Amino acid sequence: MRFLHTADWHIGKKLHGYDLLEEQADAFQQIIGIAKTEKVDAIVVAGDLYDRSVPSVEAIEVFNRMIVEMNLQEKFPVLAISGNHDSSTRLETGGPWFVQSNFHLNTRLDQAFEPVEMNDTQFFLLPYFEPISARLYFANEEIRTIEQGMKLVIEEMKNRFKPDMAHVLISHFFVAGSEKTDSETTLMVGGLDTVPLSLLEEFDYVALGHLHGKNALQAPNARYSGSPLKFSLSEMNQQKGVWIVETSHQETTFEFREITPLRDVVQIEGSFKELIAPDFYESIDREAYLHIQLTDRAVIPNMMNQLRQVYPRVIGVERLYGREQQKQKHEPKKEIKTLVPTELVGRFFSDVTGETLTKKQQIWLAENFETIHQEERGK
Amino acid sequence: MRFLHTADWHIGKKLHGYDLLEEQADAFQQIIGIAKTEKVDAIVVAGDLYDRSVPSVEAIEVFNRMIVEMNLQEKFPVLAISGNHDSSTRLETGGPWFVQSNFHLNTRLDQAFEPVEMNDTQFFLLPYFEPISARLYFANEEIRTIEQGMKLVIEEMKNRFKPDMAHVLISHFFVAGSEKTDSETTLMVGGLDTVPLSLLEEFDYVALGHLHGKNALQAPNARYSGSPLKFSLSEMNQQKGVWIVETSHQETTFEFREITPLRDVVQIEGSFKELIAPDFYESIDREAYLHIQLTDRAVIPNMMNQLRQVYPRVIGVERLYGREQQKQKHEPKKEIKTLVPTELVGRFFSDVTGETLTKKQQIWLAENFETIHQEERGK
Repeated sequence: MRFLHTADWHIGKKLHGYDLLEEQADAFQQIIGIAKTEKVDAIVVAGDLYDRSVPSVEAIEVFNRMIVEMNLQEKFPVLAISGNHDSSTRLETGGPWFVQSNFHLNTRLDQAFEPVEMNDTQFFLLPYFEPISARLYFANEEIRTIEQGMKLVIEEMKNRFKPDMAHVLISHFFVAGSEKTDSETTLMVGGLDTVPLSLLEEFDYVALGHLHGKNALQAPNARYSGSPLKFSLSEMNQQKGVWIVETSHQETTFEFREITPLRDVVQIEGSFKELIAPDFYESIDREAYLHIQLTDRAVIPNMMNQLRQVYPRVIGVERLYGREQQKQKHEPKKEIKTLVPTELVGRFFSDVTGETLTKKQQIWLAENFETIHQEERGK
Repeated sequence: MRFLHTADWHIGKKLHGYDLLEEQADAFQQIIGIAKTEKVDAIVVAGDLYDRSVPSVEAIEVFNRMIVEMNLQEKFPVLAISGNHDSSTRLETGGPWFVQSNFHLNTRLDQAFEPVEMNDTQFFLLPYFEPISARLYFANEEIRTIEQGMKLVIEEMKNRFKPDMAHVLISHFFVAGSEKTDSETTLMVGGLDTVPLSLLEEFDYVALGHLHGKNALQAPNARYSGSPLKFSLSEMNQQKGVWIVETSHQETTFEFREITPLRDVVQIEGSFKELIAPDFYESIDREAYLHIQLTDRAVIPNMMNQLRQVYPRVIGVERLYGREQQKQKHEPKKEIKTLVPTELVGRFFSDVTGETLTKKQQIWLAENFETIHQEERGK
């Protein structure tokens, strides 16, 4: 059995306010391309299909197109689970029909114990669950943590193991010993939500979702696929991609296949003057999501607007050596109370832009304050 | 071809704050029962499956169970469209898989021109659409109203008519000449969103959704099914149910089958004393959703709480003959400004409940105001 392992699509996620739907659609096309080239028998998606429990209409449109293409057009069997970012109920709609074309989308704990058998392999599709679900399913009030729940879950799965088949677990949890980045914020690390690796050792392969780096866990039989895209600056240096896994009763192997982002997440460093010089910006990928490390200490009027004219996707600006205190050109603070509103606005304008209001702007401002005053008096 | 015509399920709708999911599940069971008894070949649902574009998780759970039972368990072919209350994109998920088991759920205008053929009948499933969708589909900037759009839509459908078959339109609009109640608030009546009946005359049957009364439109070839439940007081006297339609190339007939609500919407009238007397309330259905018409004019302290002890589902209280002005027991209004907060709360309490604060309540109140003052000073 040969399958592709991906996870953490987070369809609809934004990166510092920038919509990633185009990048996500592109990464998806690469995943389909890899699946075809590698002639896999199935595609595994280990949770967090959406970024939010109530995704936007735009995110739903993109996701709907993806699953139609993957399963109905390209005819790949799909083995998927809901993650902690998904609403299991919202994702459940259609599930009972999906199975007609070998699209298995598990959203409830009770579904995890009916393995999907393909070729020589049993797949156990365990969606993300809270301890309360295990408490109800096993009718066991003692279950307070994910680890306690997982012990019983794994036991019940082992009862269904067919000895002459390979056994794969598809799951969405934090496994003890894994390394975390900044963009997986919802689950606790090393706390109540942690699953010990030892619990998983009887599986031939554990296809994990939740952590966004492919190297987050190094185990003989378990991998996080990581997300198809970089979702935060902390993932800047991660190579994104998918695992191609080959299972058999005797041996399981897996290899990584890279995904190249449509627009990368990149950090650049320099003085403001250097960064806005064509020599520099023509030498780099200006379309990338850029985190800028500025070496200047001086105050730079209208800085963000100027940077964005050169770099359309600035996700952050950091002053490497701090910033000079702005010179006190004006009266000390307590005198601000004595200024009339037009003077206050004028001062704010020059603080921000480094320019002063024109005569025309001053007149417009005065007229508008007058209108406001009149309306106030009229009440 | 024999089918059941229903519409306007509005799953998740509340009636004056009361959740109707239990009533909706019960009405659905009656619909399934009628479909079985009448041995229909299909079930038609003419839009407004949900009450809101983003339904609650509870509403989705109920709806998912309904469609699984109707189509996968009871094996009824289903012909459904989205209505103006539905989010077409959110409803679309799963649609391409649903058709594998004869569940046709159209949510986009372009799907309306691929009729579903069953037995001797062509079904055109036209979801609710805005003029902008017709403008884009027909690449015609002139289309500003639903009527203009519908003309082109119907023309295009007629081009697909097979002359030896019956032709049924499933649609969700306000048809000119129909009668409206209070609970269909979103579309305009008789304005830009109105479709003239004459446009529909070449269909053997038009299965309409949108208006909640089965008698809203009297036409030889068109009916609103109405909602399965009463969704407002104005629907109090409507008989709810579904149409059983029999189409053939020669003749089309339709008959109404009633649904009995789990809890009815009822209006009762009497004095407060009469209404809370066992003689009266034991003679009526206390579990119904009740609109109460009070004949008293006197102020009745703590009225709603007393009524709700007898009638658990009061959806409104109306004073048939107005209400006496409450006697001015207290100082005139302008003196209120001089009262301290504890006095103000005490007065409000006795105005509303007709009782005075106990000593214990007064102490509790004073202590809490003191805490608030301290916190305010601490800021």
